[in-house]
Amino acid sequence: MEKPIRPTILITNDDSVYSKGICELIKAVRPLANVVVVAPDHVRSGMSCAITHSEAMRLSKLHEEEGFTVYSSSGTPVDCIKLSFFALFKDKRPDLLLSGINHGSNSSVNSLYSATVGAAMEGCVNNVPSIAFSLCDHQEDADFSQVIPYAVQIIKNVLNHPIPYATFLNVNFPKGEIKGLKVCRQADARWSEEYDQKISEYGDVSYFLAGYFDNREPESTDTDEWALAHQYGAIVPTKIDMTNYDCLNELKDLYGNV
Amino acid sequence: MEKPIRPTILITNDDSVYSKGICELIKAVRPLANVVVVAPDHVRSGMSCAITHSEAMRLSKLHEEEGFTVYSSSGTPVDCIKLSFFALFKDKRPDLLLSGINHGSNSSVNSLYSATVGAAMEGCVNNVPSIAFSLCDHQEDADFSQVIPYAVQIIKNVLNHPIPYATFLNVNFPKGEIKGLKVCRQADARWSEEYDQKISEYGDVSYFLAGYFDNREPESTDTDEWALAHQYGAIVPTKIDMTNYDCLNELKDLYGNV
Repeated sequence: MEKPIRPTILITNDDSVYSKGICELIKAVRPLANVVVVAPDHVRSGMSCAITHSEAMRLSKLHEEEGFTVYSSSGTPVDCIKLSFFALFKDKRPDLLLSGINHGSNSSVNSLYSATVGAAMEGCVNNVPSIAFSLCDHQEDADFSQVIPYAVQIIKNVLNHPIPYATFLNVNFPKGEIKGLKVCRQADARWSEEYDQKISEYGDVSYFLAGYFDNREPESTDTDEWALAHQYGAIVPTKIDMTNYDCLNELKDLYGNV
Repeated sequence: MEKPIRPTILITNDDSVYSKGICELIKAVRPLANVVVVAPDHVRSGMSCAITHSEAMRLSKLHEEEGFTVYSSSGTPVDCIKLSFFALFKDKRPDLLLSGINHGSNSSVNSLYSATVGAAMEGCVNNVPSIAFSLCDHQEDADFSQVIPYAVQIIKNVLNHPIPYATFLNVNFPKGEIKGLKVCRQADARWSEEYDQKISEYGDVSYFLAGYFDNREPESTDTDEWALAHQYGAIVPTKIDMTNYDCLNELKDLYGNV
């Protein structure tokens, strides 16, 4: 009897190939699939969908065994995905792309800045079903034990039920107890700009990003921020087409379509 | 008689404060408004919404005269916007944010990678009406003369007719003749991953991003790519909420909302 064909899952992140979150994800996924890891060789948090277009990039094989290969790259997370599609998946794309598990939240507006989300977006652009996973805990030794069973449930679901076209899942988990999962929309939120300033002896000012998170709709119960604040994992189906269709006609009137 | 209050326009880009595109935009806008420029001190193309979160940033005043101030920053374009809101616009936001004019296309999928677009997105997150302008010509000495009258028309429109909430305009112009403006949706497109490879004498492989642009729907006449290919300026109203609302209910069934 032939062995059933195992799916191939590509895994990346933005905290680097050496972070705890990606190791925990790999461990959880290996029983389900052949796993190829292509992740940054150093921390690339906050890199969004950034690409490297005028510098050389490396792709180094760190480990290889039956059904499990690990590469690191000097590129950004999006570079990792593009590079792996070129160098490792030229003929056949992976069945699934997982990005994470990120140390720290990528909910609501954070998804714009997140390279964990950026990598999932790049998978989605290339028609590979993609999921970004994040845990709302920045600590290096964050506890992923509550997260893993839910992540595995979502992964199995996506392997069996394709995500809609040009859409990926952005999944965030609260720190601590997880009561279940909620499918949500992105909350309307932002970071208020605050910077720590340091003045050198020559009077030069250096700015260090600080700031606080401002959820503009804390009362709305259908957002990712609400779910996380109430100890639910938040699944946001996220589109790569950002066109605001609702105002197309209004703007057509304004600009006349000459 | 009091002087009429002039609007204040914040200008940034990702090609650096020294590029031709931003200089042409500044020249066109100064008759309309007080202008504050905060732009990167070196090229930051392809940086998307990347932020600098663990390094110091500088903000240096390069020029000041009545109604016109120029700063450069060592940060990314999104950093430039955040930093300017903190250091220069603490009490009152600018009336408008312009990003560009970029040397090179930021249409369809390019908008994901573009820091010109990223900066406009950051303005939008902070409720400042924002427009990203790009010309489909990478050359350093690209000719912006056709672009400027259309850009000014769009800027005047936006000053008089607010853009819908949580939406900004991503505007691309074709190289050469411009026949008019079209309000469009983002085309479904991607870059095929191709890399130039160089092998060192030690056998190390370096990868350099190459690839070609693949418009998956060249026949659709309502996209930005179609408009540009037919010598029209393409205006895409772009949302920062990327939730795919169409599949929320379907996914709720799948994940049970336990």
